[in-house]
Amino acid sequence: MDFATLIGLALGVGLIGYAVVGVSAALPQGVMTFVDVQSLMIVLGGTIAATAIAFPVKEVLSLYKNLTAIFSAEREKDRDTLLEVVDLAAVARKGTAELEKALGGVKNLFLKDGLQLIVDGLPEEDIRNIMETRVTNREVREDAEANVFKTMGTLSPAFGMVGTLVGLVAMLFAMGAESSGDDTIDPAAKLGQAMGVALITTFYGALFANLLFNPIAAKLRSRIEKRNVSQYMIIEGVVMLKNRKHPILVKEFLNSYLPPKDRVYET
Amino acid sequence: MDFATLIGLALGVGLIGYAVVGVSAALPQGVMTFVDVQSLMIVLGGTIAATAIAFPVKEVLSLYKNLTAIFSAEREKDRDTLLEVVDLAAVARKGTAELEKALGGVKNLFLKDGLQLIVDGLPEEDIRNIMETRVTNREVREDAEANVFKTMGTLSPAFGMVGTLVGLVAMLFAMGAESSGDDTIDPAAKLGQAMGVALITTFYGALFANLLFNPIAAKLRSRIEKRNVSQYMIIEGVVMLKNRKHPILVKEFLNSYLPPKDRVYET
Amino acid sequence: MDFATLIGLALGVGLIGYAVVGVSAALPQGVMTFVDVQSLMIVLGGTIAATAIAFPVKEVLSLYKNLTAIFSAEREKDRDTLLEVVDLAAVARKGTAELEKALGGVKNLFLKDGLQLIVDGLPEEDIRNIMETRVTNREVREDAEANVFKTMGTLSPAFGMVGTLVGLVAMLFAMGAESSGDDTIDPAAKLGQAMGVALITTFYGALFANLLFNPIAAKLRSRIEKRNVSQYMIIEGVVMLKNRKHPILVKEFLNSYLPPKDRVYET
Amino acid sequence: MDFATLIGLALGVGLIGYAVVGVSAALPQGVMTFVDVQSLMIVLGGTIAATAIAFPVKEVLSLYKNLTAIFSAEREKDRDTLLEVVDLAAVARKGTAELEKALGGVKNLFLKDGLQLIVDGLPEEDIRNIMETRVTNREVREDAEANVFKTMGTLSPAFGMVGTLVGLVAMLFAMGAESSGDDTIDPAAKLGQAMGVALITTFYGALFANLLFNPIAAKLRSRIEKRNVSQYMIIEGVVMLKNRKHPILVKEFLNSYLPPKDRVYET
Amino acid sequence: MDFATLIGLALGVGLIGYAVVGVSAALPQGVMTFVDVQSLMIVLGGTIAATAIAFPVKEVLSLYKNLTAIFSAEREKDRDTLLEVVDLAAVARKGTAELEKALGGVKNLFLKDGLQLIVDGLPEEDIRNIMETRVTNREVREDAEANVFKTMGTLSPAFGMVGTLVGLVAMLFAMGAESSGDDTIDPAAKLGQAMGVALITTFYGALFANLLFNPIAAKLRSRIEKRNVSQYMIIEGVVMLKNRKHPILVKEFLNSYLPPKDRVYET
Repeated sequence: MDFATLIGLALGVGLIGYAVVGVSAALPQGVMTFVDVQSLMIVLGGTIAATAIAFPVKEVLSLYKNLTAIFSAEREKDRDTLLEVVDLAAVARKGTAELEKALGGVKNLFLKDGLQLIVDGLPEEDIRNIMETRVTNREVREDAEANVFKTMGTLSPAFGMVGTLVGLVAMLFAMGAESSGDDTIDPAAKLGQAMGVALITTFYGALFANLLFNPIAAKLRSRIEKRNVSQYMIIEGVVMLKNRKHPILVKEFLNSYLPPKDRVYET
Repeated sequence: MDFATLIGLALGVGLIGYAVVGVSAALPQGVMTFVDVQSLMIVLGGTIAATAIAFPVKEVLSLYKNLTAIFSAEREKDRDTLLEVVDLAAVARKGTAELEKALGGVKNLFLKDGLQLIVDGLPEEDIRNIMETRVTNREVREDAEANVFKTMGTLSPAFGMVGTLVGLVAMLFAMGAESSGDDTIDPAAKLGQAMGVALITTFYGALFANLLFNPIAAKLRSRIEKRNVSQYMIIEGVVMLKNRKHPILVKEFLNSYLPPKDRVYET
Repeated sequence: MDFATLIGLALGVGLIGYAVVGVSAALPQGVMTFVDVQSLMIVLGGTIAATAIAFPVKEVLSLYKNLTAIFSAEREKDRDTLLEVVDLAAVARKGTAELEKALGGVKNLFLKDGLQLIVDGLPEEDIRNIMETRVTNREVREDAEANVFKTMGTLSPAFGMVGTLVGLVAMLFAMGAESSGDDTIDPAAKLGQAMGVALITTFYGALFANLLFNPIAAKLRSRIEKRNVSQYMIIEGVVMLKNRKHPILVKEFLNSYLPPKDRVYET
Repeated sequence: MDFATLIGLALGVGLIGYAVVGVSAALPQGVMTFVDVQSLMIVLGGTIAATAIAFPVKEVLSLYKNLTAIFSAEREKDRDTLLEVVDLAAVARKGTAELEKALGGVKNLFLKDGLQLIVDGLPEEDIRNIMETRVTNREVREDAEANVFKTMGTLSPAFGMVGTLVGLVAMLFAMGAESSGDDTIDPAAKLGQAMGVALITTFYGALFANLLFNPIAAKLRSRIEKRNVSQYMIIEGVVMLKNRKHPILVKEFLNSYLPPKDRVYET
Repeated sequence: MDFATLIGLALGVGLIGYAVVGVSAALPQGVMTFVDVQSLMIVLGGTIAATAIAFPVKEVLSLYKNLTAIFSAEREKDRDTLLEVVDLAAVARKGTAELEKALGGVKNLFLKDGLQLIVDGLPEEDIRNIMETRVTNREVREDAEANVFKTMGTLSPAFGMVGTLVGLVAMLFAMGAESSGDDTIDPAAKLGQAMGVALITTFYGALFANLLFNPIAAKLRSRIEKRNVSQYMIIEGVVMLKNRKHPILVKEFLNSYLPPKDRVYET
């Protein structure tokens, strides 16, 4: 579990919820004043509809996958990967046959694929090319997915405004139409309520964008960059293993991918 | 048919339309309150006019072509292209004459052009140069076309605002001019109605931008990037065919352009 | 004449003008309500003043040159240039002396300068360097000029807002000052009119930015990119001529700079 | 201590505080009018919550570290580092053994690590690779941290608006609900106060973003760039030491990283 | 003197000033209505305070230097520099000793430093490296300084809004508090005046940003780019002098850095 996401979400929903409950205590419908299904439909529905137009089906369907990914912690740590590569460097110096045997125990899939290329006997240049192409294309795909949330983060306030405009136009016309009708209900009261309803879509739009879509897009983007660093570290490691470099040199080199306090100084 | 686009559009129009019908039920003119030809003329007309100034004729005319493209699904899949290239790799190893015979059956035009360059006997460097120049210039052209929609997405809310300003100014002056006239009609009713009409252009501008222009621009852009990946994969493939690489190596290399679950492990 | 620009401008002015005339029909001053010299001075004057601060004199003076350029069509077509280069490729193979004779008939100045470098006997690398430097610096200069319009496109709504703020502040103070004066004129009427005048600057700012400055900046930018493609095509062509490549190869290579339907398949 | 930060903060808080105290002098609750715990909770709480969702735990926790860093001055000056490298250049020419002895006195950690690589006998290319990888990854990490503040700078006005919307909606509904209740309190007074409270969140959001989060993000970013220049200077220096270049040449080269007035002309 | 800056500033201040005087003629305090020291303090003070937090002391202090630079014209012209380099090319062919004698007469400092490197006998590659590093670092430093103004251009409207919010909140609370007090003064008058004062900060913020900070940032940026072109031209020239190229070739090459009409065709 990624507790930061969870705590953040709980905190945000809690705080805004508390404020909403607080200000709506004196209202006749209480907190239900802020729950309006039609407004929700315009904002969420409009956002999803425009997103469906904006992206290929495959990326829209990645929404759910990414939502769950956001709540689960990253499994692997760069430091562990580094230690694994350094250990394998000692094995690789004994020969490709030894490396092949060790292959079964490698957990990181990207590292495993890279080692397989060494075992297959490809030259250094090809190994680097294949692995870098893989990283680039992984990034292109993941960026496209993070973009779905980013787009939702701009669309959601826009549809919030669309909803408010619909409400305002209706209210303004009603103001004209009904002012000559019966006056059992206070017109100011009606006006206030109509405008309140109209503003709820803007509130929904701003809330979804800033508490959900934008932060999720940011987290996906930050994971992509973190993964890039890990994979480039692995590529350098695999190339060094291919060249049978000494484990100490491998460690020294890969250390430069880690923040100072995570660096490994003894094996 | 690209069903995502269709479903998205239907969903968006449906939801907003439902909301509009809902709120306008009590109004004297019903849903026709939200239909205002003059407002439509300012927003759509202004947007198209400014777009005509902003882009060369050729790109403006590409609008229609791209609109239909948005609704039709992409024909080719990267996985099929990969399989085709791997099959051709076996042919290419038999000699250029064999490759020329196979040329007729190749469906992907970009791949076909690339193979023709092999058959013509051009050196590797020239093949790569010609093909990469083609990709770059295709991207420049397609970007210019996607840009037309992106520009319309910024112009449309701007002209929405221009229309609202025209309406507001007229209303404010009318307020001054008529306040000393006859008072058979309630001035508040008039004011409301005039302001309602003024806001409709803003509503149109926001709706067109966020349900049409921006999502379409995003989809065109995402297709451009998808096509780039495909074409760079084909370039790598053609160069490997030129060098008569083994089909297994070709497969291994081109696999790095595909997402893990699409990769081909057996031919 | 670039008819797209002309038609766009006529359409835009026509539509907005029609709307303005329509809504102002009932007003006492008619369409003159929307003509306010002082507002025009704040918006256009402020924009020009800030532009004069923001750019060197030379670039500000390029405004007029670029405005006329926008209305004149591009003279040369890439397809014609390609055919010219292919024809010259046959000449160049006969020797530098023949090429020198053909030089007089070359219309494209950039191509002519490039051929002169061949005639002068410069090595390939120098020719490429000189020509690419020329393209880069032409782009830097033209970008700076397109930027003048882009900046005016952001400044003009800003000064529109400045004007509106001036009007609003004055109106609000007047509201306080005069409310205890004589009341022969309806205060609501006065308020409306004052606010109407204040909003006119915002209207001017939005209109100039979205119907003039931004579209012109976009068109200049799109021409710069089109010219880049043409000039890079010419550079490749000149280098191939220098190396006395066969016209068919030249055609094949330069074709990759053109969209598929413009490509030349027979000479 | 970084006095600029301190003075800036004191000046900003002082001026805004003075203005707030000034305008609230006549209000019944005085300056406490502008202190509203619930508004603070929505703005700061919402911002922190969304930030926790948007970033990995580690980067959120870096907030505190960076806040203190902002207030402490940069320790090292590029000019001193240059002088140190030039001195070491004389030592390095005497041999690696001499350099190793001098290592203890080197204060700059990045320079020390680089010199260690020379002492370890790594080839020039590896030294450059390792050191540049370290700079790149340091920049990636620090950018991620500066991004936390930049994101808070966009979230904080957004949650300010969310809070204002909550307040407005509640106010508008209350307007409807209570208008038929008892009228001992002036409704205009109530309306004014409710709207005042609603606007306070927008005020908080704008203030935090523009006086705290955005400036801090800018300062972190400017430090990152300054550190890049320093470290690239050190890399060039270490590589020149590895090649046993003459101290005068080292000085000449490293001088190009300094502004003219900081350059060292005599050792 | 850079007359464009001066004329622009005079024109801008004049036009806005004329408009302000015009609209405030009927107000009791005349043009002084728009002069409000407290508003000025919030906007300018807040902007300067946040800038002090955002940038290192050195860059904030560069403000004054850059302000004066904006008003002084650029001294050197690329065409003159080109002619000077071409003249020196003839000297350089006679030998380094001759070049050293000519060094005293060179006015452009960057060119002089480059020639000194030739005289010092450094190899071509080192000369290019040193000079390019100098250009890059000059650009980084000048960008940081231009950034100060750009940041002030975003901060100033933000603090304008902060001031307006402070004013509005105070006004709204006052509306509640005083409505039950004595009514010798018309409440609408009070409301109008209070809101007018509140809006003045927004006016100041928009004016400073769009008439001062943003244009100055743009001009600094455009000078940086102009200086880059000049210095890259000088680097090419110095490298050609190092290689003792013929003055005609030097002229031909450097001409590509100039706009067509400035090019030198006879020496």
